[in-house]
Amino acid sequence: MAGAATVALSTKEKLERARVASAVLAQLSTQEKNRLLLQIADALEAGGANILRANEEDIKRSGLFGAMRDRLLMTLGRISEMANAVREVAALPDPVNEVLEEWTRPNGLRIRKVRVPLGVVGIVYESRPNVTVDAAMLALKAGNAVVLRGGKEAALSNQALAEIMAQVPGVPAGAVQLLDSSTRDTVQELIRARGLVDVVIPRGGAALISYVMEHAVVPVIETGAGNCHIFVDEAADLEMANRIVLNAKTQRPSVCNAAEKLLVHSRIAAAFAAPIVRQLIEAGVEVRGDSESRLLAPGVKIATEEDWDEEYLRLCIAVRVVSSLDEAIEHINRHSTRHSEVIVTSNEANARKFLSLVDSAAVYWNASTRFTDGGEFGFGAEMGVSTQKLHCRGPFALRELTSTKYQIIGTGQIRS
Amino acid sequence: MAGAATVALSTKEKLERARVASAVLAQLSTQEKNRLLLQIADALEAGGANILRANEEDIKRSGLFGAMRDRLLMTLGRISEMANAVREVAALPDPVNEVLEEWTRPNGLRIRKVRVPLGVVGIVYESRPNVTVDAAMLALKAGNAVVLRGGKEAALSNQALAEIMAQVPGVPAGAVQLLDSSTRDTVQELIRARGLVDVVIPRGGAALISYVMEHAVVPVIETGAGNCHIFVDEAADLEMANRIVLNAKTQRPSVCNAAEKLLVHSRIAAAFAAPIVRQLIEAGVEVRGDSESRLLAPGVKIATEEDWDEEYLRLCIAVRVVSSLDEAIEHINRHSTRHSEVIVTSNEANARKFLSLVDSAAVYWNASTRFTDGGEFGFGAEMGVSTQKLHCRGPFALRELTSTKYQIIGTGQIRS
Repeated sequence: MAGAATVALSTKEKLERARVASAVLAQLSTQEKNRLLLQIADALEAGGANILRANEEDIKRSGLFGAMRDRLLMTLGRISEMANAVREVAALPDPVNEVLEEWTRPNGLRIRKVRVPLGVVGIVYESRPNVTVDAAMLALKAGNAVVLRGGKEAALSNQALAEIMAQVPGVPAGAVQLLDSSTRDTVQELIRARGLVDVVIPRGGAALISYVMEHAVVPVIETGAGNCHIFVDEAADLEMANRIVLNAKTQRPSVCNAAEKLLVHSRIAAAFAAPIVRQLIEAGVEVRGDSESRLLAPGVKIATEEDWDEEYLRLCIAVRVVSSLDEAIEHINRHSTRHSEVIVTSNEANARKFLSLVDSAAVYWNASTRFTDGGEFGFGAEMGVSTQKLHCRGPFALRELTSTKYQIIGTGQIRS
Repeated sequence: MAGAATVALSTKEKLERARVASAVLAQLSTQEKNRLLLQIADALEAGGANILRANEEDIKRSGLFGAMRDRLLMTLGRISEMANAVREVAALPDPVNEVLEEWTRPNGLRIRKVRVPLGVVGIVYESRPNVTVDAAMLALKAGNAVVLRGGKEAALSNQALAEIMAQVPGVPAGAVQLLDSSTRDTVQELIRARGLVDVVIPRGGAALISYVMEHAVVPVIETGAGNCHIFVDEAADLEMANRIVLNAKTQRPSVCNAAEKLLVHSRIAAAFAAPIVRQLIEAGVEVRGDSESRLLAPGVKIATEEDWDEEYLRLCIAVRVVSSLDEAIEHINRHSTRHSEVIVTSNEANARKFLSLVDSAAVYWNASTRFTDGGEFGFGAEMGVSTQKLHCRGPFALRELTSTKYQIIGTGQIRS
């Protein structure tokens, strides 16, 4: 197998090859990159049998079942979806070489700020093998070399996918590197490779993200944790509030933009709490709450202090009655992970105050938290949702996979 | 003394106060922030006697002399310069609340990307006390709380300056925090305070920056190291090249945008090398070089492999003869710290190739490296020069002290 040779490389050698490849990738034209992406999409479909064979072996070895097995499982249908996602990335606009600003200084120097690729992008992720392809395609489209460190359950699937991508004719040697997933040493080496790696993006659970944040020496983009709030104001359209809460909590409870907390203004709590709690429970949601909400609605379990900080990622929600907009904002700024928060209200002043004072990546007035997503924002595919304030905040996609550079043209200027 | 109370706070308490202050600062209007800055400028001048007394004690305790003492020394003139720098920051445009983009999705959601303050900005720096004021003013103007951790030699000076700033009426409580400089523990606490600190900026020597990069858990902006190159192409105007090299090396050799390496195309090396080396030596520069440059110019000492990676930050330069533009680009991309690099040439194709392929924050055609500076770029005062690719690259000033937020207005949209 062609991949056998690369398996023998050390992590450092792989990173050095990625560095060399990044210089080649940075110079590819949009047309060249798109052609490579379309060829990769075709190669994934053509290589379906290899992928399925590797995946079958992964599943056998993992001993997983149920939802965990399903996350790992690949089918011809899923491979086809993956290939189509690659074709969609090919169709997106290329951010590289965009001139962001251009000006001339009094001394005649002409300064231009241009978008350039980041260089070498590392991704550390967990079981789902489709991330191998999604992340690599976004990185490549933005002119970056990509270093992938997936979960060990998907080791063979990821290897099959990475080999197919790396072996497409025209993909620069070293552009797609897969690190050994059988040891945590490779994560350590990746996140400490200052000078070789320009950014590492952890995609996965809180433990993975914390580990990377804690140990990384290279820049990291923190993603994902979403303890998202919905505040139903006293001036809310309660029917709309009801619809938004049910959607944000139940439409896909395992994702970071699902709602986890419901704050209800005390003036409408008597009218709103009992029906929404009943509907949530009917939808299979475990409802926890403070003492006031428990008085107003039957079936609410007691919430502890820890509940207000927890990201459930499942059919569970905690409800709290607040006496004012200010109390809602204060609660959110104290407990949220700064991902996505909603106010439902027909009072514009209250809405404006909420949008201004709530310190989160995405703040909504009268809409579901579930829209915090690159696709829903119109960015195309996304790498994740950043909850940090540096570099990018909120959904990050192609544009956020770039850096900038200043090009300055003079006529012999010197500084006096 | 009013400052005595704050000295007793733990680092964690100071960071928590800064966090609280950041929410207040984020809501100040441009007018309010500018008024505070002007009051601070006046207060610094009014407090001159206190500052000088503290500084005198610092100097006595430090035992420093010569250039080191001069870096630490404050005079009424320097205090006045400092105050004027604050007035200049007040006059700069406010980046906060700028709407960067605004669009409507097919489902009717209106999305707006707005500039917001970063929140709590930490700065770790070395001896010069003026950084205490410069950095704090830039952070405040962009609506951030600032946590300062200066060098221990300037402890009393920094305390006097921080107290004057913090005590100006209207400055939110906690907005300017000074950490204890007598122990490295405070640096550790600052750079590991995930959730309390949004970014840490190290300003100082390579050892300080490495220490912060190595141990930080919060996001960091890497600044400063500049192993900057000038390549004199075969098609260069040699008189212009001569002027640029002398300026970039000697005008202020201790700063990060000074030139450290000179690459000379072999075709013009015979004509160019001897005169420039002679003039550099006359200007007090130690010149090192490869064997070819040593054959061409008298007085060149032997350069070792380490020389190509070293940032001298003093009157020293290393010269190398290269046989092509490609060799120059390859040498630069291998050895530079990605700060600032120059090509001197009258060949536009060569210049364009250099501007495109050299992977540095600022790439110049026919100008001195010394222009990589917020002021010279027209940004006003700067925080430093970023040599990393995330968040900001090159000179970073007010705009780069902000983050963004998405504000989304709906009419009850839910996701299907």
